[in-house]
Amino acid sequence: MIETEFKNDVFSNVMLKRHSVRHFDRSCKIDRSVLTEIVKEATTAPSSCNLQAWHFVVVDTDQGKEKLRKIFMPFNHPQLDTCSAMVVLFGDTDAFKKYRDLWQGMYEEKKITKERLDTILGTFLPIYEKADRTLLTADAMVDASLAAMQFMLDARARGFATNPIAGYDATKMALAMGLDPVRYVPVMAIAIGKPDESQKELVSTRYDVKDVLEFR
Amino acid sequence: MIETEFKNDVFSNVMLKRHSVRHFDRSCKIDRSVLTEIVKEATTAPSSCNLQAWHFVVVDTDQGKEKLRKIFMPFNHPQLDTCSAMVVLFGDTDAFKKYRDLWQGMYEEKKITKERLDTILGTFLPIYEKADRTLLTADAMVDASLAAMQFMLDARARGFATNPIAGYDATKMALAMGLDPVRYVPVMAIAIGKPDESQKELVSTRYDVKDVLEFR
Repeated sequence: MIETEFKNDVFSNVMLKRHSVRHFDRSCKIDRSVLTEIVKEATTAPSSCNLQAWHFVVVDTDQGKEKLRKIFMPFNHPQLDTCSAMVVLFGDTDAFKKYRDLWQGMYEEKKITKERLDTILGTFLPIYEKADRTLLTADAMVDASLAAMQFMLDARARGFATNPIAGYDATKMALAMGLDPVRYVPVMAIAIGKPDESQKELVSTRYDVKDVLEFR
Repeated sequence: MIETEFKNDVFSNVMLKRHSVRHFDRSCKIDRSVLTEIVKEATTAPSSCNLQAWHFVVVDTDQGKEKLRKIFMPFNHPQLDTCSAMVVLFGDTDAFKKYRDLWQGMYEEKKITKERLDTILGTFLPIYEKADRTLLTADAMVDASLAAMQFMLDARARGFATNPIAGYDATKMALAMGLDPVRYVPVMAIAIGKPDESQKELVSTRYDVKDVLEFR
């Protein structure tokens, strides 16, 4: 089972009081085992047909950060310079290639019936096998974003703060991280660390819910 | 302040024990005020440059569901037939058009300095004004997905269950919901309701975290 350590296990506080932090305490290092646990828990997120088309690259070394610095907009250098780790999240457009084995395994674990397995492999797998890059990219970005939100909430439950970042040269991100730029599409970067309490952080305004909601 | 009513306010339970539910209790109706509150809380999610490029259409009438039925894959009809509401989530590719007013308002509320306002309007707004549709769509899908994850968690904290759904004819979704199909891109649908406890639901398997995580 999943083991965890939440200093703040109050859902309403974790979710409703979250806001982005852009200045972190430079002295805070987060152990890789903790970062791994946060990713593990974040990936309990749902995904399209359970494709799990997310891929996390956690950058916590000076060398790794230097590579990011070259492609980050200067506006986002403060987060990069002060965070414990910058987590670069990609969508994996090849995720469907593991699909048959995944569902076969779920059948063997008796989680699904043979009928369900046949439906999945006969109906959904062909959709992905025939899909164009636009669809694969869109699905992967959605999957990765769902996991990203859980990553940010999980981090907060552990007493950390985060800042999701889109301001970088997306065309260079995969190569900078040593990944195949055809297979992996960058979705966002997330700075994680302890907040620098001496800095005042912006709590940004949201539109009135009536502006973004309709009933049918 | 945000008012809420969480039956289950334990973060670890809400997030780590969530799984999709595909069979709901048909007798459960969720009041529109409650659905509105869930959307309101879900949209505390972060978004690219605070664009908030999400748009929720909550379908809770027979007429609305009938429109969805015509474009949903049959595999997803059970959720549509039994859920209290099907929430169709769109990305709003025109969100940047409200951007100047939003940040101007935050400046007037003294949430940001004049310098920050000038940076935002001088650096980020032009990126969106010049952006092609691919970028606007991608950003909107990420924003909407972040809010979607919070919607599912918030629903669970209130004692409801959800199922995110991608199996529908995306080319017809905006028109079916009476929206401009150029402006609004469908991201996912989310069924919400009370679980039908007589049904055994699949808890799908996740890959080992080592398969989706690298350090740099």
